[in-house]
Amino acid sequence: MSYSVPGTTLGVVGGGQLGRMLGEAATPLGVSVIVSDPTPDCPASPTVTEQVVGGFDDEQTIESLATKSDILTYEIELADPDVLERVSNRTETPVQPHPETLRLIQDKLVQKRALQEAGVPVPAFRAVESAEELRDTVAELGPVMLKARMGGYDGRGNVPVHSQAEAETAFNEIDGPAMAEQWVEFDRELAVIGCRGDGEQATFPVTETVHETEILRATVSPARTTAEVCSKAREVARDVLSFLSGRGVYGIELFEVDGEILVNEIAPRPHNSGHWSIEGCYTSQFEQHIRAVLGLPLGTTERRAPTVSANILGDGETRRRANMQGMAELLARERLSMHWYGKREVYPLRKMGHLTLVGRENATDDSLTDELLTEAMNAVSQLAFD
Amino acid sequence: MSYSVPGTTLGVVGGGQLGRMLGEAATPLGVSVIVSDPTPDCPASPTVTEQVVGGFDDEQTIESLATKSDILTYEIELADPDVLERVSNRTETPVQPHPETLRLIQDKLVQKRALQEAGVPVPAFRAVESAEELRDTVAELGPVMLKARMGGYDGRGNVPVHSQAEAETAFNEIDGPAMAEQWVEFDRELAVIGCRGDGEQATFPVTETVHETEILRATVSPARTTAEVCSKAREVARDVLSFLSGRGVYGIELFEVDGEILVNEIAPRPHNSGHWSIEGCYTSQFEQHIRAVLGLPLGTTERRAPTVSANILGDGETRRRANMQGMAELLARERLSMHWYGKREVYPLRKMGHLTLVGRENATDDSLTDELLTEAMNAVSQLAFD
Repeated sequence: MSYSVPGTTLGVVGGGQLGRMLGEAATPLGVSVIVSDPTPDCPASPTVTEQVVGGFDDEQTIESLATKSDILTYEIELADPDVLERVSNRTETPVQPHPETLRLIQDKLVQKRALQEAGVPVPAFRAVESAEELRDTVAELGPVMLKARMGGYDGRGNVPVHSQAEAETAFNEIDGPAMAEQWVEFDRELAVIGCRGDGEQATFPVTETVHETEILRATVSPARTTAEVCSKAREVARDVLSFLSGRGVYGIELFEVDGEILVNEIAPRPHNSGHWSIEGCYTSQFEQHIRAVLGLPLGTTERRAPTVSANILGDGETRRRANMQGMAELLARERLSMHWYGKREVYPLRKMGHLTLVGRENATDDSLTDELLTEAMNAVSQLAFD
Repeated sequence: MSYSVPGTTLGVVGGGQLGRMLGEAATPLGVSVIVSDPTPDCPASPTVTEQVVGGFDDEQTIESLATKSDILTYEIELADPDVLERVSNRTETPVQPHPETLRLIQDKLVQKRALQEAGVPVPAFRAVESAEELRDTVAELGPVMLKARMGGYDGRGNVPVHSQAEAETAFNEIDGPAMAEQWVEFDRELAVIGCRGDGEQATFPVTETVHETEILRATVSPARTTAEVCSKAREVARDVLSFLSGRGVYGIELFEVDGEILVNEIAPRPHNSGHWSIEGCYTSQFEQHIRAVLGLPLGTTERRAPTVSANILGDGETRRRANMQGMAELLARERLSMHWYGKREVYPLRKMGHLTLVGRENATDDSLTDELLTEAMNAVSQLAFD
């Protein structure tokens, strides 16, 4: 079933930067967005028509959101699939992607097992429920990344474990159900934004992601790898999409290792690795998510031009009011677009915004993307918070 | 003086589609927009942080807007320059472009005289204050376009007068101070979006505008004319900018006649002829207006690709609730973007939205733009209101 535009109201659980950019993409389509978020005046509030204030898993909040909406989606994995399912049944408001998909993805161990069963290539992994099990796993697999099964994001909930000696401390740091994944000596990290629409699916061009201290710093599209690797990456992404259920956009994070692709993680929502599509594609991942969720035709995923994005991260050492200096100067750079997320407070490594640099059309050699990346990183380094 | 971003609040008099698209462009820059508009829940309301409800020339409304804003601008010529000036002085809130510019542009006779004095080429024109003066003008200049000096838009307030016999009826139709402009047998209509920033000015690429019953139906960029005409058009636009005062974006409507350029009209705000820039340029006219008004560096005006826009106009014969059919089907067309204006009611020829079609990069021959235009007009013709 598809929803009529203009005129539909989309309820979004979560009102962070993803909700904000969903709001930006929705208005031109005549779609009203309402978000629910515990923080009053959340980042999404200026771009949406209404905010319901309340927790991501608070049943009353979600029910209030549902009764105001024709259909629900979520922009954060902290949404509760059980709550979504109950509210959806009670209010007869569909949820896309299905709560079942969220349940499967939310628990990293369940996600990895499901991927493996579906024949999707993933790093070796083990469930880990004690420091002892972790020590045994390191003995078996060598160095691992220990991951909390639930609730981690932007590197939080992830601890690298290089040796058996580190097992005790690492396990205590996670303090809950965990999984250990064999350490992958990747050549680079890649990502594909995949979309499942109404009877169709599509993948965006492969993006290279640059991480530092486990946080995404920049994306480069096209990825600086071979055409063969790109085509493998999109193929794996298609396999991932086929095994998911429910309409929407998915961020699929990948490792490239010796020309092969392994799936790292999936997010059932627009993803930081796809922000470049706002300027870099004819249809952005945000518009695509709305089209997919509402069952409208998907837009083309074709890239318009080489495009680089760089995250604006919180600096300093304290949590404080967010006063950023340097943006006005950056706007003098040609073909640079700013995306401020409207967060009131800044703290170290918090995602405060991003900028995008677009190359001139039809010049897709790696040296150009190198140059764009260098310029983007230089630009970001000129920004500072008081 | 420039304003710091993120963090500035821009007050906009008028909350129609231009205010709506200004709001869309402002959020990524971290600029908050507040609009004033007499219609509660006006088209701009979903994209801005607040609406002050009240008339465009209501002094209390404008004062309330000013006290909430760091700087004021307007998206409608019905704003009152005297009110703006008084409020600006009282509240120490600057207005850009200057109310003086609005005063000059608002009265079509004053505007034309000023352009003529500045040496800008314009059609022959006369002030007309009676049916008799109109008859005399037709005797002298031949067929004319009779224009109300104040308040006309989208062809309203314009009456073609082909002969002296039509003078009486035409003058009565305008019913107020008017001017008559010699009928121009133009080869095509062109438009240039010009911008005055802080110590810099810029012009967007020349756009061809396609009108029917005096309402803009479509724009084509690049214009299907010679490079020489385009360069003359931009030169005239630069002359127009030099004689205006105040920062902001201006829509400059032109006639092309036998390879020469005449200025038709100027709008002191983003203009329908520049909507294509949202997808077609690196910096849209809306972002450019915000940059200019705040004294930030202007963005490049370079075109990314051939781009056509087509207006979605009200059909039928009555004023009624706006229920549009056919948009979902159109979204299946590649490289098509929708812009719905969120108006609750539709009436004949009301501007309800527009769509944009982008060509593939680096293919700028006229046959491609012909094709894009045909496709855009076909697309619009598939839409209908209940």
